[in-house]
Amino acid sequence: MSNIFFTVGPSQLYPTAKKHIEKAIQDDICSLSHRSKKFQEIYASAVQNVKNLLGIPENFQIFFLGSATEAMERIIQNCVREHSFHFVNGSFSKRFFDISGWLGKKPEKVEVKFGEGFYFNDINIPDESELICLTQTETSAGTSVPMKEIYSLKKRHPEKLIAVDIVSSVPYPKIDFSKIDAAFFSVQKGFGLPAGLGVLVVNEKCLEKSRLLEKDGISTGSYHNFSNLLKYAEKNQTSETPNVLGIYLMAKVAEDMLEYGINKIRKETEEKAERIYDFFENNRKMEPFVKNKKIRSQTIAVIETPGGSKEIVEKLKKKGITLGTGYKDFKEKQIRIANFPTHKISDVEFLLREIENL
Amino acid sequence: MSNIFFTVGPSQLYPTAKKHIEKAIQDDICSLSHRSKKFQEIYASAVQNVKNLLGIPENFQIFFLGSATEAMERIIQNCVREHSFHFVNGSFSKRFFDISGWLGKKPEKVEVKFGEGFYFNDINIPDESELICLTQTETSAGTSVPMKEIYSLKKRHPEKLIAVDIVSSVPYPKIDFSKIDAAFFSVQKGFGLPAGLGVLVVNEKCLEKSRLLEKDGISTGSYHNFSNLLKYAEKNQTSETPNVLGIYLMAKVAEDMLEYGINKIRKETEEKAERIYDFFENNRKMEPFVKNKKIRSQTIAVIETPGGSKEIVEKLKKKGITLGTGYKDFKEKQIRIANFPTHKISDVEFLLREIENL
Repeated sequence: MSNIFFTVGPSQLYPTAKKHIEKAIQDDICSLSHRSKKFQEIYASAVQNVKNLLGIPENFQIFFLGSATEAMERIIQNCVREHSFHFVNGSFSKRFFDISGWLGKKPEKVEVKFGEGFYFNDINIPDESELICLTQTETSAGTSVPMKEIYSLKKRHPEKLIAVDIVSSVPYPKIDFSKIDAAFFSVQKGFGLPAGLGVLVVNEKCLEKSRLLEKDGISTGSYHNFSNLLKYAEKNQTSETPNVLGIYLMAKVAEDMLEYGINKIRKETEEKAERIYDFFENNRKMEPFVKNKKIRSQTIAVIETPGGSKEIVEKLKKKGITLGTGYKDFKEKQIRIANFPTHKISDVEFLLREIENL
Repeated sequence: MSNIFFTVGPSQLYPTAKKHIEKAIQDDICSLSHRSKKFQEIYASAVQNVKNLLGIPENFQIFFLGSATEAMERIIQNCVREHSFHFVNGSFSKRFFDISGWLGKKPEKVEVKFGEGFYFNDINIPDESELICLTQTETSAGTSVPMKEIYSLKKRHPEKLIAVDIVSSVPYPKIDFSKIDAAFFSVQKGFGLPAGLGVLVVNEKCLEKSRLLEKDGISTGSYHNFSNLLKYAEKNQTSETPNVLGIYLMAKVAEDMLEYGINKIRKETEEKAERIYDFFENNRKMEPFVKNKKIRSQTIAVIETPGGSKEIVEKLKKKGITLGTGYKDFKEKQIRIANFPTHKISDVEFLLREIENL
């Protein structure tokens, strides 16, 4: 019996991932020097394919890190002198807030309960805030922030930097990068790749802010501060020996997605999300956790299971389906279903049929 | 024609690595949740196997990071209030020194030229130094620091912490961990694994120092400060989604090495090193760069090629052998040969025969 993972990340590998891993081994990609010309070519193609796929303008830089959590740290170190402002709607946006405090900055936040959205018009962001941090899709709660709300924040605060966590939604949301300053993600979610690589996308304003902090003697980190990341990125290299296989696979899967068609991926994501939410809207025992349809994530569906999640998860496991449980305190009360590009419509149909049959 | 990599890292994969990668794919290791019981088991076995292999006492913690360079950053952030002291004998020990400065500390150093060793008895380490940093094998220069010199440093400065970079030598040197406080490495060298994982080994004194700094309001980093690393390590987890495949492979290859026998690996390393150095001692056109035999690295042989390195590298490439070139300024004047556990005696014989035939 073959297994399918609907976990929220790491998740099911992208259909072509295994083939690319096999080819990488065959071609000795894992033995390649990170200072070789061949590595530089892989690096350049990863950057170009990600830019093409996500519509990232040429004036943005792409940096490879260890994880999306590292991206949070590096953004705070390089873009914040003292004050960051955080929209907290779950555990990952909370982590971004915590990291700022840990790094000795003075983060402020507006916080809503798990599953709820923000009233953007009622939120006053202090003048002193230098950076606004948002989590586009909260993996812990299954909520998402509409991109237009983010753009309108930027319009109201053009002098502030805006960083968007797109970890659990990428490559689904179509983003106008001219209206944000930084975004970041990891590869074990929508890209369906082995974990261990973070991708940070920043514009010139972020780099400029980092230079300003450095000039004023504020530590922006070390080997992964923006100036050092940029110095190596310009050579299609990294300062440290990176996850070479991860960068190679990123290049390949982004290429496959380009070929498949990003619009098709986006349309299918919405179709699958609609089926999932419709199913649970009409289910007697379970229902979507997020009540406001406008902020329901298209890629992470959180479902309330009043009868407990454990039995559902175990029964489906026997059918070859691995689901996510609820996050931390919600572990026993919810299930979480990822809807990533790797999940075909027929996979979702299979999943829902098996849940129906429980 | 099959290829063999004698590059200094990334290098030739360990003979069993490919098999483990294939098994990992087959067993859906890359889709495994990093909060699952199965992941915790993998994590625990990686820690235990590395401890057993390297003789690391139970009271040491093992933390998984993105790279060895990250380990340098985390050690400085967590073990240094103001003053670190560095033995600089090449580019990687220099990087450790630079990272301390970048992080706003006040590093001091004793520096020798590439290929030279330290006169340990003549070196005065300032009283104020909190941490002494050494690079056991300098990948850039092919030199190594004898472990007994490191132990004697510890004896003279029991109140200071000692951190040892064992990136390019592990698992070769037999280390008495009771005489050092921290060590770190990455997996793409002696372990013959795909790059993208750093391993940091610290004792209770390092953790205590980190707690002291935190208590005094000094930022020790964020998600990867020692207290957070420890909090998750105690659960056999990591705070961020880590390189799950890397940790799995680390567990497996450390197990394979244990089975093969660490003493055998060490003995063979010395035998192969002797053959390599003997060969070049007796070669008309090339000679070992490091003249003092006592500080020649057993795992990284740097060879001077007065006639230029380019032609040698290219000719061997055609025979299926990939060599390292000299580091940066030495690129055209030297070759570098890795002597890792993956390299069999017959591989070294093949290499030397082909060089002889040039």
